[in-house]
Amino acid sequence: MGALRGTAGARKRVVIVGGGFGGLYAAKALAGKPVDVLLIDRNNHHVFQPLLYQVAAGGLSPGQIAAPLRHILRRASNIEVLLAEVAGFDLDGRTLRLKDGAEVAYDALIVAVGARHAYFHHDAWEAHAPGLKTLEDAIEMRRRILTAFEEAAREAILTGKAEPLTFAVIGAGPTGVELAGAIADIARRIVAGDYKAIDTRKARVLLLEGSDRVLPTFPNELSIKARRQLEELGVEVRTKALVTEVEARRIQVEGEWIPVRAALWAAGVAASPLASQLGAELDAAGRVLVQADLSLPGHSDVFVIGDLAALRDARGVAVPGMAAAAVQMGRAAAANALRHLDGEPGRAFIYKDKGSLATIGRNRAVAQIGRWRLSGLVAWLVWALVHVSLLIGFGNRVRVMGEWIWAYFKRELSAGLITGDRRQ
Amino acid sequence: MGALRGTAGARKRVVIVGGGFGGLYAAKALAGKPVDVLLIDRNNHHVFQPLLYQVAAGGLSPGQIAAPLRHILRRASNIEVLLAEVAGFDLDGRTLRLKDGAEVAYDALIVAVGARHAYFHHDAWEAHAPGLKTLEDAIEMRRRILTAFEEAAREAILTGKAEPLTFAVIGAGPTGVELAGAIADIARRIVAGDYKAIDTRKARVLLLEGSDRVLPTFPNELSIKARRQLEELGVEVRTKALVTEVEARRIQVEGEWIPVRAALWAAGVAASPLASQLGAELDAAGRVLVQADLSLPGHSDVFVIGDLAALRDARGVAVPGMAAAAVQMGRAAAANALRHLDGEPGRAFIYKDKGSLATIGRNRAVAQIGRWRLSGLVAWLVWALVHVSLLIGFGNRVRVMGEWIWAYFKRELSAGLITGDRRQ
Repeated sequence: MGALRGTAGARKRVVIVGGGFGGLYAAKALAGKPVDVLLIDRNNHHVFQPLLYQVAAGGLSPGQIAAPLRHILRRASNIEVLLAEVAGFDLDGRTLRLKDGAEVAYDALIVAVGARHAYFHHDAWEAHAPGLKTLEDAIEMRRRILTAFEEAAREAILTGKAEPLTFAVIGAGPTGVELAGAIADIARRIVAGDYKAIDTRKARVLLLEGSDRVLPTFPNELSIKARRQLEELGVEVRTKALVTEVEARRIQVEGEWIPVRAALWAAGVAASPLASQLGAELDAAGRVLVQADLSLPGHSDVFVIGDLAALRDARGVAVPGMAAAAVQMGRAAAANALRHLDGEPGRAFIYKDKGSLATIGRNRAVAQIGRWRLSGLVAWLVWALVHVSLLIGFGNRVRVMGEWIWAYFKRELSAGLITGDRRQ
Repeated sequence: MGALRGTAGARKRVVIVGGGFGGLYAAKALAGKPVDVLLIDRNNHHVFQPLLYQVAAGGLSPGQIAAPLRHILRRASNIEVLLAEVAGFDLDGRTLRLKDGAEVAYDALIVAVGARHAYFHHDAWEAHAPGLKTLEDAIEMRRRILTAFEEAAREAILTGKAEPLTFAVIGAGPTGVELAGAIADIARRIVAGDYKAIDTRKARVLLLEGSDRVLPTFPNELSIKARRQLEELGVEVRTKALVTEVEARRIQVEGEWIPVRAALWAAGVAASPLASQLGAELDAAGRVLVQADLSLPGHSDVFVIGDLAALRDARGVAVPGMAAAAVQMGRAAAANALRHLDGEPGRAFIYKDKGSLATIGRNRAVAQIGRWRLSGLVAWLVWALVHVSLLIGFGNRVRVMGEWIWAYFKRELSAGLITGDRRQ
């Protein structure tokens, strides 16, 4: 591809920052087009975020839901992948700056760096209640969940008794619901036979939601069904239960202190801090307020998509921070970037709602697709089909499908390894 | 099982420290016997070490070669698993001390904590050339190998040229040979199509061995065949090439400095430092000199097995630090522990040589089994069968076999993710 210090006289270059759903699908949309594409990510892999909670719960291995970006894009000879972290932008000079100081010039830029979990100004809580956005997050969450069981067992073995085993999942959006359901399934069914010193079925799994229902962005009817299914799984659901304090061994909910062995955060996301480097107006969650064609106000060559962007689309629909929306925005931004390079105006983005899905345990779910509302096993099958088909890589699809079929019949935590931090 | 502070009047308790091949098979041999068994490990999982190099090379996921110890032993109602780290022993008092200060009493003790890689008094080298004993080691090695490719690509993208891409594997025993072959296979074949800015096929893979041949513990005929197969794979093999200095970006071999992007250590192991806590005589590698029945001199209730033990068996055969030997010792120590608890003397251990195997690349190997010597594809098939059958867990066998079949036909680094440390 050659040096990136100037683009005069060469093919135009589109730089994409971020290899999640938005950035990856923008890149795929530019494969084979008469432009050079550089995809930059600080990780070498794309993560299928909807299944991160299954890695956190020890049911899937990281490798089954992730694939190296350059391998995904290998067949596109006009796309190169760069492992690097972006530090800032010079929008007038049309360059971006990497953390190591190097500069990268662009003719069009698509910024898709996504979101991080947010703690509503209580950043100290992060050490005690990790969130779930990256593979490392999932591996750390897995470590805490499994270590909680092991510590209870250790107490019972060494002293003859153990403090109660309580998990708290904070936030009942899809991530929180799915995590709580998975942990309850682990405690009640999967590992129940593996522990002799403790009865894991007595573990408490609390799901704490500040608003008045679980899955607040879903139709009320599905919130009710989801709550019932969670309670059947043994999850203690508390709505209108705002968490006011998070410490290493206990949390405070509506003024009441509850001792917990592991607290997991699923209560909020905020846009990447890189948003502030773009010099544009941000909304309350730190997302960039973009134009109708996804471009940055005043910079028709810069596009912001995915969880980093805040937009009401051409029909006034607020675009949600979901994978399907990021995919659509990625494709639209890629098309508009090409239009810009051709001297044409961009087209307004229209969001097509593909529905919402959330699993509860290993064979239940709630799903809303258009006007359809499904729950129970049927919803879970739809969920499984949708997610397997969206997985990148035929190999991964086979692996994950095989894993789910296996897990249905066998009680074992296929990827129930504690790796990483050793704090004993 | 109850508190472990005293054993008077209760069933006898056998404590096993270490859940590798020695400790795990000792535990399995005690399943259903009229004793209580406590297996202690600082990790919650058993790792199939012979395949660690495939995790380091991105071909297998950690979860495919490891399984939670308590899950493996779930059906034995007399066996409990404790996640803890042992700090020391009071052999006269028949207790051991955990890192957190708690004490565990035993009636018989089997110590199987294995080995770590050793740097011949150059401990500073470890930061620059990691070894391969645990899953975390493998993940870190994988990170360095893949990051080396990515850094070369980054240089080429940003500046138009890149320094040569050189890997050094230090030590040509089975681990080093297998690693070097795997890295050469990655560079020449698997990822060659994924990089556009660099030609990975030009990467150099050096295999450096201080003695005069690769696989020095194998018959000379197989050393010769292995060397040839490695060279066909593009590995530069240097024997009588002692490494005299290891720095972050270069190593010194027989006085010559060679710039490398990643150096990997496979040149030596030493027994766990816990050996010194047993108060017995150690050999030059730090291993405990045990009696013929695997017991500690002067303590017929304490057995030391696996890589931690140094022994010439009843027929004078030096027992090697290999998985098969550890398995046999585990079973023998378990039987002798039961004899001790019954007031009977222990029986001398006799090692049955099951042969040696080492793979070279994805479809070649050398194998010595009894008087049989095999090489090439036939040896690889034997290797594959042996290792798949020894894997713990039917699920893992299916996964790994499926992975190898898939890898045979597809060019993709199934688990080629960079996770962990982010140093950019």
